Amino acid sequence: MIPRYSRPEMVALWAPETKFRIWFEIEAHACDAQAALGVIPQANAAAVWKARDVTFDVARIDEIEAVTKHDVIAFLTHLAEHIGADDARFVHQGMTSSDVLDTTLNVQLVRATDLLLAGMDRVLAALKTRAYEHKDTVRIGRSHGIHAEPITMGLTFARFYAEMARGRARLVAARAEVATGAISGAVGTFANIDPSVEEHVCKMLGLTPEPISTQVIPRDRHAMYFAVLGVIASSIENIAIEIRHMQRTEVLEAEEFFSPGQKGSSAMPHKRNPVLSENLTGLARLVRMAVVPALENVALWHERDISHSSVERAIAPDATITLDFALHRLAGLLEKLVIYPANMLANMNKFRGLVMSQRVLLALTQAGVSREDSYRLVQRNAMKVWEKGADFKTELLADPEVTAALSPAEIEEKFDLGYHTKHVDTIFRRVFGA
Amino acid sequence: MIPRYSRPEMVALWAPETKFRIWFEIEAHACDAQAALGVIPQANAAAVWKARDVTFDVARIDEIEAVTKHDVIAFLTHLAEHIGADDARFVHQGMTSSDVLDTTLNVQLVRATDLLLAGMDRVLAALKTRAYEHKDTVRIGRSHGIHAEPITMGLTFARFYAEMARGRARLVAARAEVATGAISGAVGTFANIDPSVEEHVCKMLGLTPEPISTQVIPRDRHAMYFAVLGVIASSIENIAIEIRHMQRTEVLEAEEFFSPGQKGSSAMPHKRNPVLSENLTGLARLVRMAVVPALENVALWHERDISHSSVERAIAPDATITLDFALHRLAGLLEKLVIYPANMLANMNKFRGLVMSQRVLLALTQAGVSREDSYRLVQRNAMKVWEKGADFKTELLADPEVTAALSPAEIEEKFDLGYHTKHVDTIFRRVFGA
Amino acid sequence: MIPRYSRPEMVALWAPETKFRIWFEIEAHACDAQAALGVIPQANAAAVWKARDVTFDVARIDEIEAVTKHDVIAFLTHLAEHIGADDARFVHQGMTSSDVLDTTLNVQLVRATDLLLAGMDRVLAALKTRAYEHKDTVRIGRSHGIHAEPITMGLTFARFYAEMARGRARLVAARAEVATGAISGAVGTFANIDPSVEEHVCKMLGLTPEPISTQVIPRDRHAMYFAVLGVIASSIENIAIEIRHMQRTEVLEAEEFFSPGQKGSSAMPHKRNPVLSENLTGLARLVRMAVVPALENVALWHERDISHSSVERAIAPDATITLDFALHRLAGLLEKLVIYPANMLANMNKFRGLVMSQRVLLALTQAGVSREDSYRLVQRNAMKVWEKGADFKTELLADPEVTAALSPAEIEEKFDLGYHTKHVDTIFRRVFGA
Amino acid sequence: MIPRYSRPEMVALWAPETKFRIWFEIEAHACDAQAALGVIPQANAAAVWKARDVTFDVARIDEIEAVTKHDVIAFLTHLAEHIGADDARFVHQGMTSSDVLDTTLNVQLVRATDLLLAGMDRVLAALKTRAYEHKDTVRIGRSHGIHAEPITMGLTFARFYAEMARGRARLVAARAEVATGAISGAVGTFANIDPSVEEHVCKMLGLTPEPISTQVIPRDRHAMYFAVLGVIASSIENIAIEIRHMQRTEVLEAEEFFSPGQKGSSAMPHKRNPVLSENLTGLARLVRMAVVPALENVALWHERDISHSSVERAIAPDATITLDFALHRLAGLLEKLVIYPANMLANMNKFRGLVMSQRVLLALTQAGVSREDSYRLVQRNAMKVWEKGADFKTELLADPEVTAALSPAEIEEKFDLGYHTKHVDTIFRRVFGA
Repeated sequence: MIPRYSRPEMVALWAPETKFRIWFEIEAHACDAQAALGVIPQANAAAVWKARDVTFDVARIDEIEAVTKHDVIAFLTHLAEHIGADDARFVHQGMTSSDVLDTTLNVQLVRATDLLLAGMDRVLAALKTRAYEHKDTVRIGRSHGIHAEPITMGLTFARFYAEMARGRARLVAARAEVATGAISGAVGTFANIDPSVEEHVCKMLGLTPEPISTQVIPRDRHAMYFAVLGVIASSIENIAIEIRHMQRTEVLEAEEFFSPGQKGSSAMPHKRNPVLSENLTGLARLVRMAVVPALENVALWHERDISHSSVERAIAPDATITLDFALHRLAGLLEKLVIYPANMLANMNKFRGLVMSQRVLLALTQAGVSREDSYRLVQRNAMKVWEKGADFKTELLADPEVTAALSPAEIEEKFDLGYHTKHVDTIFRRVFGA
Repeated sequence: MIPRYSRPEMVALWAPETKFRIWFEIEAHACDAQAALGVIPQANAAAVWKARDVTFDVARIDEIEAVTKHDVIAFLTHLAEHIGADDARFVHQGMTSSDVLDTTLNVQLVRATDLLLAGMDRVLAALKTRAYEHKDTVRIGRSHGIHAEPITMGLTFARFYAEMARGRARLVAARAEVATGAISGAVGTFANIDPSVEEHVCKMLGLTPEPISTQVIPRDRHAMYFAVLGVIASSIENIAIEIRHMQRTEVLEAEEFFSPGQKGSSAMPHKRNPVLSENLTGLARLVRMAVVPALENVALWHERDISHSSVERAIAPDATITLDFALHRLAGLLEKLVIYPANMLANMNKFRGLVMSQRVLLALTQAGVSREDSYRLVQRNAMKVWEKGADFKTELLADPEVTAALSPAEIEEKFDLGYHTKHVDTIFRRVFGA
Repeated sequence: MIPRYSRPEMVALWAPETKFRIWFEIEAHACDAQAALGVIPQANAAAVWKARDVTFDVARIDEIEAVTKHDVIAFLTHLAEHIGADDARFVHQGMTSSDVLDTTLNVQLVRATDLLLAGMDRVLAALKTRAYEHKDTVRIGRSHGIHAEPITMGLTFARFYAEMARGRARLVAARAEVATGAISGAVGTFANIDPSVEEHVCKMLGLTPEPISTQVIPRDRHAMYFAVLGVIASSIENIAIEIRHMQRTEVLEAEEFFSPGQKGSSAMPHKRNPVLSENLTGLARLVRMAVVPALENVALWHERDISHSSVERAIAPDATITLDFALHRLAGLLEKLVIYPANMLANMNKFRGLVMSQRVLLALTQAGVSREDSYRLVQRNAMKVWEKGADFKTELLADPEVTAALSPAEIEEKFDLGYHTKHVDTIFRRVFGA
Repeated sequence: MIPRYSRPEMVALWAPETKFRIWFEIEAHACDAQAALGVIPQANAAAVWKARDVTFDVARIDEIEAVTKHDVIAFLTHLAEHIGADDARFVHQGMTSSDVLDTTLNVQLVRATDLLLAGMDRVLAALKTRAYEHKDTVRIGRSHGIHAEPITMGLTFARFYAEMARGRARLVAARAEVATGAISGAVGTFANIDPSVEEHVCKMLGLTPEPISTQVIPRDRHAMYFAVLGVIASSIENIAIEIRHMQRTEVLEAEEFFSPGQKGSSAMPHKRNPVLSENLTGLARLVRMAVVPALENVALWHERDISHSSVERAIAPDATITLDFALHRLAGLLEKLVIYPANMLANMNKFRGLVMSQRVLLALTQAGVSREDSYRLVQRNAMKVWEKGADFKTELLADPEVTAALSPAEIEEKFDLGYHTKHVDTIFRRVFGA
C-alpha cells in the first residue's frame, strides 16, 4: 500500500482495529449461538457484549502476542481483560483460529467491495454525464491510430460507461463469491461445533455459510475475486490510455483539468501532462499483479497449508486500496476533463475531407460508374489533397468526370456528418436505457 | 496447441473450415436482414444460401488470399465461386471485416464454452459418484501436510464437487460475457448498415447484439472470459495436487488407475506414477498463462488497434483446447481413481491415537481437572506414543490419574470416529442438495 | 505456434525429425563413451553410426509408440530397424529417458538461441544504420506525450540499439544458462553410468555437463531463459509503441513501408495502418506469457515430477518461434521504415517556438532580470503564441522589456537547435563506440 | 511491505530519510562537477557539503511539498534551509527531477542487491554445511513422488546449493543491470548540463553512466532486475517445497526446528507444522508478482511517460524487502533443520528392497538368463514383497532359479547402497570445487 495512492476509508478497513472489531463480532455472535444450543451459559454469552463499544488496543494485543506467539490467543486474552476472565471463559469454544481469520478476511473483502462499488458508481455517473454532454460532439474515429470515420465524443464516453457497467456487474458477482463465512473447525467437519453456530454468525455478518470448507474457505473464491479486480483495472487502463492519447500535443482533443493557479504551466502552456491518466495506467498494473498469485493460492495441500496467508496479507489490502483510489482518481478526472470540440473538428479536417473518400467511391459506383473508374476518380482527387493540401470536396466539385455522375448536392451530401451520427441515439438507448 | 493434449471436437471448432462456415452464416444472415430492409434484393439474399451445404475449400481461399492479402476478401471471392458473382455482389455490403471476424470469434468461444461445460459436467458427475461412494470412508485430515483430525474421503470429493460447481457457474457467466456479436461498421456507428442487421445476425447465431462496439467488440469481455478459464484451471490443479499427494509412496491412499497389463510396473510394483495428475498440474499452468495477455488486450487505442489479434489467435484455441482436454483427463482419472481405505486407516493410526489427544484434553478439563493438570496428563501419555510407539488409548486407560477423571467408556468414546463424521450428511446436503 | 507468425528455420528446429536426430546423436556419442570405458564393445558403438545419415521416420516411430506407449523406447526400436537389433543392443545402456529428453531440450534451446541471436543482430544492424542516417534529423522529444525539448531521430534509434544490445547480452547469458546436458540416470547419481559418458556427450553437443542433476536438469535455468525472452519481447514492444505513435495521423513522423502497388491505400492515402508494429505489440504479449509458467515450473517435487513437461512442450517452441518471427519482422520494419523529417520539423514548430521558453527564461535571469520578472516576460509572450498562434521568437524580439535584457542575437541563439544536439556525437560514441 | 515479513536493514534502505540522503549526495556531487567545469562557483559547491551530516526532516519536506506540489523542489527548499538560500542557489542547476529520482532508484536497488547478496551467501553457507554434514546420509530418491533409487541427503542440499549459486550469479548480473545513473536533462540530450557531471556523480555513487537515457533510465534494465528476483524466489520455493514434503507426517525425514519450550506441540507431538517453509512458498509468489508489471513498464511513450512510477513505488521496496526476508528465513530454517536419518532408512526400506529390483533384473540378464525369464523371476519375488510384505533379498536368496544364476554374494551386492553413492564425491567436487 502506497499512502499517496490510497483513501482513508479503505485503509481503515484493513487496519488492525477493524480486524479486531470483526474478530470480536464473530466471537460474540458465536457465543450467542452456542448459548442458544445450550453449549455455554446464556449469561456468559451475554457478558461478551460488554465489549461491544470497546476499541481494541492494538499495542496491547501485540504485546501479548509477543509472548503467546499466537494472534488469536493474544486477542482473546485481551478480550478477557475487558469482559473479565470468568465471563470470557467460553469465548471461542469449539472454534479454530481459521474460523475467525477466514471469516474476517471475507467480511473485509465484502466491505471493501462495497467501497469499490461506490467508486464505480461515481465513475459511471461521471461517464453518463459526460456522454450526454458530448453526445453530438463530433470527432474522428481512429483505428490503428489512423483516422477512419467520424464518431462523437459521447459515443466514447458511452462505451466506457458500458464497459464499467459490465465491471460493476462483475464486481457484484465477485462480492457474492467471497461473501461466505466458515465456523467449521480444524478440518471443516464441525466435530467440535454445531453447524448452526456457523449459520448464526454468517447471518449476523451478512455472509452465507460456506457449504463445505476445510480448515479454510476454498481459495478459488478469492482467485475469482482478484481476477475481477484485474479486469476492472484493465478497463480503467483502457480509459486512461484514451485520455493520454487525446491529450497528446498533436491531438489535444482533451486535457486533464489544470486549476488556473496550478504552478509551472504558464511559461510553457503546452506542457500540461496527463499525469493522472499515466498514474492510472501504472495503478492498473499494480492491481493486476494480484491475479497470478491469487490463482497460485488455489491449490493448497489437503485440508489447508498456510502458503496463501502471506500472499493475502499483501494483496487483499493492496489490490483493494489501489483499485479504490484509482476509481476515485478516474472519476475526478472524468468529471473535470476538459474537452476541446474545436480541436476535434480541426483534427478531423486535417486531411480536408479525405475521410469521406469511401462514401464518394461507393456513391460513384452506385451511380453507375465502373468500380475501376470510380476508384481512379476518387484517387486522383484524393492525391491532390494528400500531396498539395487541396480540399477534397472542392476538388470533386471541380472534376467534370465526377460531376457527370454525381450532382453537387449529392457530393455535398457525402460530406454530411449526420450520416455518421444518425444512430447515436439508438446506441445511447442501448447503453443507458430508454 | 499440443496434439497430445487435445480432443478432436474442440480442435475442429478452431479449424479454418469451421471459421469459414461461421463467416458464411454471418454473411448470409446479414443478406437476409438487408433484403428485409430493402437494401439489397431478396433474390440475391436468397441465392447466398445456395452455399448452405458447402464445405469451403481452405486451400483455395489461402490461394486467393496470397493474391488479395486480405482474408475476408479472399473468402468472399471464393464464396462467389460457389454462388455466382452476380448473386454474390451484395454480400458483405455495408459491413467491415471486423464485423465478421469479431462475431465469429465470439461464436467460437460460445461453442467452445458449451464443450467445456460438458467437460465440467462429466467431472461433476464423477466427483458426485465418488463422493457418495466414499461418504463414510474415514481418512485423516491434514493441515500443513501434518495429521490433524479425521475426515472422510467423501468430504474430499464433495469439496472438489462444490468447487467445480462454482467453476461451472462462473463458466456460464463467462459464456454470457462473450455471447455478443457486432455488425456495426468501421468505427461502430452503423453509418453504413442498419442496427437491425446486427440484431438479426445475432439472433440467428444465438448471440446478443453488443450494445456499443467500436470497430471491435470490447475486450474486457474476453479478459473476463480467460480469467475464468484460469480460475477453473487452478481448481483442476487443486484436485491434481490432492491426488499426487495421495499417491505418494509413503501415503498411498489412492492411485491413478493402471490397467493390469500396463507395462513396466510389475517388476517394481510400487512404481506407479501419478502422471495424469502431474500432467494436469502442468496443463493448469498452460491455461492460466492466457490470463495476463488477455488483460493486456483490454486497452486498445481509440476505436481499435490490432495488437489483440495475434494474442487471440494463440490463446483462444490454446486455452480452450487445453482446458477441454484437462477436464476430460480429470474426469477419466476421477472415474477410475483407485481408493485404498485400508491404507487410509493405517495412516490415520500411524500415531496410535494421538490425533485424539485434543478431545481427551478437553474431556479432562470438562471433568473438572485443571487445565494444567489435564495438559500434563495428556502430554505424558502422548509422549509414550511418540517416543516408544505405545498405543494412546491403552496408555490412558492404564493411567490411574486419567481414569480417576474419566471412565473407560468415556475414554473409549473419545476415540469414536463417529464424533468426527456426525455432520457428514449435513455437509453433503449442503453440497448436493436434499 | 501460429504458422503466420513463424519462420521455417525455427519451426524446423522443433520438428520431430530434428528431435529424433538429436536423440540419435546423444545415443551414438554415449555409446562411444561407453566403449571407451570398456562397458560396451567398440564394434557396437561404431555400428550405431551407420544411422548417421538417416532421416528418421516419424510416422513409423509414432506407430511403434502406439504399441510401446513410450517415446524413447519407440525411437530405440526404430533405430534398431536401421542398424540391426544385434548392433543396437547396447544403445541407451545405463541411461534413463530423461537423460535423452532433457539434454535434447537444451540442445534445441541452444540452437533456437543461435537463431534468435542472428535475429537480434539483424535488428541491431538496422538500428545502427538508421541511427547514423538520422543522427542529425531533429524532432521534438516528448515526455508524457507532450512536447518537451528537441532531440534527433538518430538518438531514438540509438537508444533502441542500446536496449537491444543489452538484450543480446542477456540472451548470450541465457544461452549459457541452458547449454548444459545430463546423462546421470534415474535420480542423478550416476549409479548405472559413469560421469565420463555425460562429459563426452556434452562435449560433442557443445554443452557443459550439468554439475548436479536429479532425474532432470534443474528448471531454474529454463525459468531464467524464458524470463530473458520476456524482457527482449518487452523491448520489441517498446520500439513498436514508438513507431505506432509516430505513425498516428496527427503525428506522422514515420510510416511503415507500403509498396507502391500495395492495395487499398490510394483512395484513402492517409489510411496506412502500422499493422506490423501493432502485431509486434501483440507478439510481445505472447512471448511474455511464457515467463510465469516457466517460473512455476521451478519447484518440482523431490527428484522430479513431470508437471513441467506439458508446459515446455508448449512454451519452448511457441516462445522461441514467436520471438524469432518478431525479431525479423521488426528488423524488416526498421530497415524500410519511412521517416518524415519535414513533418518532424512541422510538429516541433506546432507551438511556434514555445519549446524554447525555458531557455529564454533562464537567459533572462542570467542577464540580471529577477526571477519573477523573467517569468512574467516569458509568460506574456508565450500566451500570445498559445492563444493567438503568434511566433514566440517574433514576439520576444518585439517586446522592449525583453530586448532591454537580451540582444536580438542572444534571443536568436536561444532558438538554435544546435544547443540541443551538441552532445549527439558524444552519445553516439557511448552507444556505438569510437 | 508487510512488517512481519521484513528486516530493518532493508526497510531502512527504502525509508524517506535514505532517499533524501541520496538526493543530497547526487546534488552535492553534481555541484562539485559543475564547479570543476566553471559553471558554478567553487565556493557554492563546497558550501553544499555543510549538509553532509544532516538527517533531513521528512515531515518538514512533506510540509513544503504540500505547498509546492513537487517533491524535488520541496527537498531543495529544505536543503536551502540548512545551507542558506544564497549558497543553495546553484544546486540542481541544469538538472531535471528525473535525473535525481532515477539515479536514486538505482542507488537504492544496488544497495538492496548488496543486502540480498549477503542473504544469499548466508543461504549458500548453510546449504554447504548441511550438504557435507549429510553427504553420506542415504535416503530414497523420488520421481513423481514415488520411490525410485537411493540418493543422499547431502546431494539434495548440494543441488540446492548449486541452484542458489546460480541465483547468486544472476543477482550479480542483475546488480550490474541497474547500477547506472543519468544526469542528462529533460529528454536525455545534455542540452543544459555537461555529460561530465553525470560521469562524476555516477563515479562517486558507484554507478556507471547510462550510455543513452531519455528523461529516464531505460526500464528494460529494471524488468531484467525484477525477473531475476522472480527466478530466485522460485528457487526458494523449490527448497521450501522439498522441506514441506520431508516434514509430512508419513514421510518425516526432516522437521523445521522447534525450540523445546515452543508451545502447543507437546500434547500432539506429531503436530509440528512446516510453517516457515509454507510461508516461504507464499513469499515466493509475492516476489514473483513483481515480474509482470516490471515487464509492462518497459514500453514507455517517447522520451518517457510516468506510468512506471507508481508501479516502482510499490514493487521496488516490496520485492526486495520480501526477498531479503525470505532469504534470511530460509537460511535460518536450513541452519537448524532437523534431519532424521533413521526415518530416511525406514522409508527407503518400506518396500523391503524392491527399489533394487532393476539391478537384480539387469544382473540376471547379464548372467545369461533370458530377458523374459529374468523378468519373470524378479516379478514373482517382487510380488511377494508387495502383496505379503516379504523381504525382497530374502525371497531372492530362497528362490532356486535365482540362485542358479546368481550367487548369494552377487545377490547381496545388488543391495549394496554404495553402488548408488559411489559418485557422490565426484558430484560434490563439481558443485563445491576441489
